[in-house]
Amino acid sequence: MSQEVLQHTFPNGLTLLVERMPHVRSAAFSISVPAGCAYENDKVRGLAGVMLDLMTRGAGQRDNRALSLALDGLGVDRSESAGTMTLMLGGATLARNLAATLDIYADILRRPHLPAAELDPTRSLALQDIQGLEDEPQAKVMVELRKRHYPDPLGRDHRGTEEGVRAVTIDDVRKFYQRHVQPDGMILSIAGDVEWQALKEQTGRLFGDWKASALPEPKPRNERPRSEHLQKELDQTQIGIAYASVPMSHADYYAARGAVGVLSEGMSSRLFTEVREKYGLCYAIGARYEVMRDRGSVVCYTGGRPEKAQELLERTLHELKRLASGIEEEELARVKAGLKSALIMRQESTSARAAANSSDWYLLGRVRPLGEIQAAVDGLMPAKIVEHLRAVPAKDFTIVTLGPASLKYEK
Amino acid sequence: MSQEVLQHTFPNGLTLLVERMPHVRSAAFSISVPAGCAYENDKVRGLAGVMLDLMTRGAGQRDNRALSLALDGLGVDRSESAGTMTLMLGGATLARNLAATLDIYADILRRPHLPAAELDPTRSLALQDIQGLEDEPQAKVMVELRKRHYPDPLGRDHRGTEEGVRAVTIDDVRKFYQRHVQPDGMILSIAGDVEWQALKEQTGRLFGDWKASALPEPKPRNERPRSEHLQKELDQTQIGIAYASVPMSHADYYAARGAVGVLSEGMSSRLFTEVREKYGLCYAIGARYEVMRDRGSVVCYTGGRPEKAQELLERTLHELKRLASGIEEEELARVKAGLKSALIMRQESTSARAAANSSDWYLLGRVRPLGEIQAAVDGLMPAKIVEHLRAVPAKDFTIVTLGPASLKYEK
Repeated sequence: MSQEVLQHTFPNGLTLLVERMPHVRSAAFSISVPAGCAYENDKVRGLAGVMLDLMTRGAGQRDNRALSLALDGLGVDRSESAGTMTLMLGGATLARNLAATLDIYADILRRPHLPAAELDPTRSLALQDIQGLEDEPQAKVMVELRKRHYPDPLGRDHRGTEEGVRAVTIDDVRKFYQRHVQPDGMILSIAGDVEWQALKEQTGRLFGDWKASALPEPKPRNERPRSEHLQKELDQTQIGIAYASVPMSHADYYAARGAVGVLSEGMSSRLFTEVREKYGLCYAIGARYEVMRDRGSVVCYTGGRPEKAQELLERTLHELKRLASGIEEEELARVKAGLKSALIMRQESTSARAAANSSDWYLLGRVRPLGEIQAAVDGLMPAKIVEHLRAVPAKDFTIVTLGPASLKYEK
Repeated sequence: MSQEVLQHTFPNGLTLLVERMPHVRSAAFSISVPAGCAYENDKVRGLAGVMLDLMTRGAGQRDNRALSLALDGLGVDRSESAGTMTLMLGGATLARNLAATLDIYADILRRPHLPAAELDPTRSLALQDIQGLEDEPQAKVMVELRKRHYPDPLGRDHRGTEEGVRAVTIDDVRKFYQRHVQPDGMILSIAGDVEWQALKEQTGRLFGDWKASALPEPKPRNERPRSEHLQKELDQTQIGIAYASVPMSHADYYAARGAVGVLSEGMSSRLFTEVREKYGLCYAIGARYEVMRDRGSVVCYTGGRPEKAQELLERTLHELKRLASGIEEEELARVKAGLKSALIMRQESTSARAAANSSDWYLLGRVRPLGEIQAAVDGLMPAKIVEHLRAVPAKDFTIVTLGPASLKYEK
């Protein structure tokens, strides 16, 4: 399998990434705009998500309905999401429909109507999203964990707050759009049965004359993580745990990633076998590596019956800490097999390629070649991972619990 | 894109389906076994799921841990699920690891240890799964809807009941295995960078001498659908709606599928624009076509704030019924574009191909060629869909609500 990602950064700061996958008929695209909820003013928390929804409700020559019809007519399977640092707009369709689809996205990004008449239903949806989270305790505990683990604004959730969403005016939306939706730092990543030259020309035509006006990234406040129990009558006690690790640019990145693999990659991983299978303490348990530009964290979720929750938390923390005591050659071998297999499988999906290339560019300013990742995974050794875990140990846990009773732990 | 699915049914009733996808490096497999929870005795509801979990806890020469390690070592991304009629075991890995993976699955299917010592944690997990559903109201309302819409055992959920799971003994597990896990009606579906001849030989070697002992499929009881409100203090009122349609083998199948597309395919679909976007009554809304061998149903989910739930239900039902009054050429055109685009994108994923071929074989006894589906979608016309909707109208709704207050409706 060949892999080549072509790249061009236009003078206004917009980067185009294109990976040609000649044996497919589809094409996927991902557009990342540095205008996430971290840029929001405290009084209008939720604004970025409301704006993003409004951007797709009419743009260029098309009103709301005409815009949806045009994209549906091109067979675009699309989605939008407001993240902490970036807005993401993406989709996939037949490769032959991609050029027409990008024309429409240029309208959405550069010429959205942001219609006042649509603000009420948009805000109403945003409020439903906030209220719906109350009925999804698994998701809620992780949202609350991130708020407490990261210094604001890094832990913000796109949903914002009820007061914030209610306070949003159409003027706020238009100002936020004017101020933050601009090409500098934007990434347009495309993968599929596509041609580089044609895409570069089209991108230049659609976005080349857009003026850059990037503001600096919001700085994290000087806040320390804080643990907390959130009282709620639930049938399960939900547990979120986070602790600091290294960013992707760090020399230890693959060692840190391998450590999380030993904890949580596959059915023979430690959390799965030691906590779930052996004791049946929880139905779901997992840890994953969460990266931002300047930091990395390990984030764990589990949940179980209230009367067993104390034991569940203790055994989970025990496994996180025990990792530094040693890793078997055998368990690392299967982590490596899993990582390499997942890597190849991701290569076969246009959407996965477009997203991974965009993420690499955002985090590292370059796209890692497949061979580089494979070599790094191949080079993982138990001793190096243990050395990393001793330098950056699992400690100072941020623990958020949601359920009928609080739990005890030493931090 | 060429598409060819080769098929062989062994004398014991096991069917092998193989689709070669030469431009990928992965291979996906899906094994369907006619031993779902519909076959359970009422006293041990949940048994099929418990047995399936135990089947992967040691088989052949390997104990529980060795089995997980072996599959993880082959980089298999695997999952198992107990459905109403069938158990599904599936996964994906690098194509070069497929043969070794199938060897292990032959152990799991034919030589599971079903160890008594693992019953307690397995049952405990099954109980957690049941209790966890209480904290997932979206999922719960759909589980409760299916129980009431379909005559038992067709509406059963794999989780079973707390009493049922508690009652399961290792003897029940072993008897259920002996009685139901056998090759007649089993489907092994594989897609990826694989060779037909080698797979046929391996399948024959692994499964050819397995004796068939199929029991008849459980007959649905003579029960009528029933609507119900389930009282629970929630922040949203959850709404599930179901009504009868036609099975996949019916001449109207594509018309029925197109009708659901107009309701729910894409962002310009009726439920999305009329109920969600225009009035902001719900965050999530959707309808989908649910097929069994002998019947098809349309199943809808939505949920919204309790004070708006009555309006939400009424507008949703109105859209379901209004469909028979007419469909625009334009809205059908974008449904067709969406269906065809999704069809091509599914062609590019080994897991999606393996699953789709297996499902076709189970439902129809044959795999529909891509060209046949494309032609059927191309041939959809508003008049034909409306004609179908007049013959099989949206009525006699099964409605299940879960939330703080019941709703009013005419059935």
